[in-house]
Amino acid sequence: MAATMRAPRIQALWLLPWLLVVFLTKFASTSPLKTIPKLAVHHRINLENPSTSTNLNPYNPEDHKTYYYDQTLDHFNYQPQSYATFRQRYVVNEKNWGGSSVAAPIFAYLGEESDLEGDVEAIGFLRDNAARFNALQVYIEHRFYGKSVPFGTRENAMRNATLRGYFNSAQALADYAEVLLYLKKHFSTQNSPVIVLGGSYGGMLATWFRLKYSHIALGAFASSAPVLYFDHITPSNAYYSVVTKDFLDASRSCHNTIKRSWGDIDRAAATSNGLSWLSKKFNTCNPLKDGSELKDYLDTLYCTAAQYDRPPRYPVTVVCDGIDGASQNSDNLDRIFAGIVAFRGYKSCYNLSEFFPSETLQGWRWQTCSEIVLPVGRGDQDTMFQADPFDMKTYSDSCKQDFGVTPRPHWITTYYGGLNIREVLKRFGSNIIFSNGLHDPYSSGGVLENISNSIVALVTQQGSHCLDLMPASQNDPEWLVRQKNEEVEIIHNWILQYYQDLFQSY
Amino acid sequence: MAATMRAPRIQALWLLPWLLVVFLTKFASTSPLKTIPKLAVHHRINLENPSTSTNLNPYNPEDHKTYYYDQTLDHFNYQPQSYATFRQRYVVNEKNWGGSSVAAPIFAYLGEESDLEGDVEAIGFLRDNAARFNALQVYIEHRFYGKSVPFGTRENAMRNATLRGYFNSAQALADYAEVLLYLKKHFSTQNSPVIVLGGSYGGMLATWFRLKYSHIALGAFASSAPVLYFDHITPSNAYYSVVTKDFLDASRSCHNTIKRSWGDIDRAAATSNGLSWLSKKFNTCNPLKDGSELKDYLDTLYCTAAQYDRPPRYPVTVVCDGIDGASQNSDNLDRIFAGIVAFRGYKSCYNLSEFFPSETLQGWRWQTCSEIVLPVGRGDQDTMFQADPFDMKTYSDSCKQDFGVTPRPHWITTYYGGLNIREVLKRFGSNIIFSNGLHDPYSSGGVLENISNSIVALVTQQGSHCLDLMPASQNDPEWLVRQKNEEVEIIHNWILQYYQDLFQSY
Repeated sequence: MAATMRAPRIQALWLLPWLLVVFLTKFASTSPLKTIPKLAVHHRINLENPSTSTNLNPYNPEDHKTYYYDQTLDHFNYQPQSYATFRQRYVVNEKNWGGSSVAAPIFAYLGEESDLEGDVEAIGFLRDNAARFNALQVYIEHRFYGKSVPFGTRENAMRNATLRGYFNSAQALADYAEVLLYLKKHFSTQNSPVIVLGGSYGGMLATWFRLKYSHIALGAFASSAPVLYFDHITPSNAYYSVVTKDFLDASRSCHNTIKRSWGDIDRAAATSNGLSWLSKKFNTCNPLKDGSELKDYLDTLYCTAAQYDRPPRYPVTVVCDGIDGASQNSDNLDRIFAGIVAFRGYKSCYNLSEFFPSETLQGWRWQTCSEIVLPVGRGDQDTMFQADPFDMKTYSDSCKQDFGVTPRPHWITTYYGGLNIREVLKRFGSNIIFSNGLHDPYSSGGVLENISNSIVALVTQQGSHCLDLMPASQNDPEWLVRQKNEEVEIIHNWILQYYQDLFQSY
Repeated sequence: MAATMRAPRIQALWLLPWLLVVFLTKFASTSPLKTIPKLAVHHRINLENPSTSTNLNPYNPEDHKTYYYDQTLDHFNYQPQSYATFRQRYVVNEKNWGGSSVAAPIFAYLGEESDLEGDVEAIGFLRDNAARFNALQVYIEHRFYGKSVPFGTRENAMRNATLRGYFNSAQALADYAEVLLYLKKHFSTQNSPVIVLGGSYGGMLATWFRLKYSHIALGAFASSAPVLYFDHITPSNAYYSVVTKDFLDASRSCHNTIKRSWGDIDRAAATSNGLSWLSKKFNTCNPLKDGSELKDYLDTLYCTAAQYDRPPRYPVTVVCDGIDGASQNSDNLDRIFAGIVAFRGYKSCYNLSEFFPSETLQGWRWQTCSEIVLPVGRGDQDTMFQADPFDMKTYSDSCKQDFGVTPRPHWITTYYGGLNIREVLKRFGSNIIFSNGLHDPYSSGGVLENISNSIVALVTQQGSHCLDLMPASQNDPEWLVRQKNEEVEIIHNWILQYYQDLFQSY
């Protein structure tokens, strides 16, 4: 089914009962648009989840102080209005900070497409390792998210075609540069090495920050950053191919059931009472208006399960156990529903568009419609999904309709590179960790092989999206502990080398 | 004399009779402003000068074709108006181009603060070395200069506070990125290594381009680029200290005469008929209105002589020969005038503000009033000039008065770095040549020591501003030939290494 034929996209926020709330990207759009899974490491601790109590270094709000920096609206322009400033939020945890006298390091988490507040709690890497490094912990919010929206409400900022023009990655990186230089000055700690880190889109930002601002960041730790999913460096169907592989690896029968189900839905929807029959079968809170409503929901569900397919409860296995474990007289669609119930839990009804418009989804819709063009699609029979090729024209028209401007699909590779990344960075740059878990569909756009001695790829077979940024837990499997230790060891070596260079220069 | 006390600055364009026309920066401003010597390698072949006939590879206009690229107005913004395009000029010389089948290199001269037309003729480095490398020669004009001014006349563009906001280095670098990627595509030569080069401000651009766009440029050759003259990394008086040293090295008595002359001018100007007496003594075309008019002229003259103190006729020596060689009964000011005559030649009268407003000076005035803040000044008795400390407040106020915006003096170091450049680039980046001639006052803000194996400094004791970019001439002294050979050898090695890496990746 061609993308242009698709019904309006839904977007959904999944409250995963086992660990975290994660956002997905189904565009908040009324125009027909591609399914672009959500990039963010958008974590919210689920307070009902007892597993947070297993964290080795629990989050303590009192250690974290919130500040605001008067940030330049437009770093790359000198029009009078470029000089306007807005309040950018950042959070500092000084608990383990060794101070300027020993040039103790600064760990800076670069905010991605979400409110920072949840990140500070959900990201464990800084908290877990600050003591070892005597590091200052800093979290900086991305412009136009959370409390870092220029001039009033987010709604107004996003409605204003002039203002939202400033909402992009190059400006965000310059924001981070200003805040970090300010902090070094404020703490009188010019010699402190800065390590930037982030996940998913935030991991791209960390990578790009190291490449563009090597004078500010000594190194970057980029978790699950699909820096190569631009401009067709990575095959368009790579994302869905990994989702498919995750399900196939979990259970061939489950994969086959899913693969067959799309046609079943189409056939049912095409009958006279089909939509009502489907609504009942899937116990939807609202009657289905179109078969694609259900298909989009399932698409999102499978992508979420794959992207966050992690311990202790691997969602792909959960879904497949539901599908495969349905009673023997179940048909395909009964099995699919059993998968939903297994994953989402028993509910009085299933709301296919719950948590409808969210800040992250609205912001990300703009970002993907301006510069972050990820040409994710899929062909005929190359995944367990129906064909849905990426079509730039359709995509572009839809963005134009929503925002009055068209995306610049080549800008990311023009400004940040990506093509021939191995040849380019083999003898240029240093100190970047690209970590990826192969269960994560976005790993297909990541750097999966070492580029040089100090631009390295850490890959875990069982890892998922941004898993290694999560708080260390008693329940972490051994391979995850090993991965995190390796990351810490590499950062440790960067800093050691830096101190030796520093010592030599005195 | 405090900067605030100074009379309006003149600016001057010196037609040096021995080789080239060079521009100087005296700001085209009606506000009191610091003396900031001109950065540009702004060369115009003087057709009356027979020395051009000694060039080993004479300029042939027929080899050079001019094109225009539809350039994005604002790369860092997604407002509807950001998408507007303007025509950016570039020139290609295919004469020696080895073609895409051998991935022959591209040499790209990055235009600086001037009309490109003169550069193509005056820059010899590409023409002299294209045959050896089978290189495509490309020259790209800097936005807002020459024929690359957005939307109509330069006057309109510069008067328009919105439009001139887009006139800055980050946008210019992104322009170069777009043009170079376009050219690689146009010539179907994805694997061709690109070497960028430039002089003075253009040399900064080349450096920054390599650091920010390593995926596009394999290496950068930056001639006389004072990348460290920002944010007080270099002492404020460094520029004038080198000018002083040049004169002192040429002749102590000449230096002393100049040093005493300022007070003589002040004392004369303070008498009742002093200005008229001075006008007559210096044979000025127009009566002096203020002593500073003469002093600014002399300041400019000495700076020019020092900056372009090069063979075959070393201007500092020429000036000093004039000063020292004046008849025995000459007083100080007679000697100064003899220096002018020696340097500028005999004229019916001397126009202290000839070539008044030029495109380069107007554009450069804006650039230095927005981001390129070079805090050049001098203290009391630390140079052969009168004290004229750099005062940011005065500077900023003057810019505000002219343009309605204030400079961002920390932006260059925020975006491009510079502080601790050795520590930063020791293990990051590669393939940059910083060449400097120590006669050039701007060498004081250059990189004068090797940073790593492939980020190297080439320094010549007798070199001057951008001398190594000039066409190879039969008259080149041996040390200059050696310097140029060394530069070519280094670039040769970059490209060799690149081809080996490329071969390995296939």
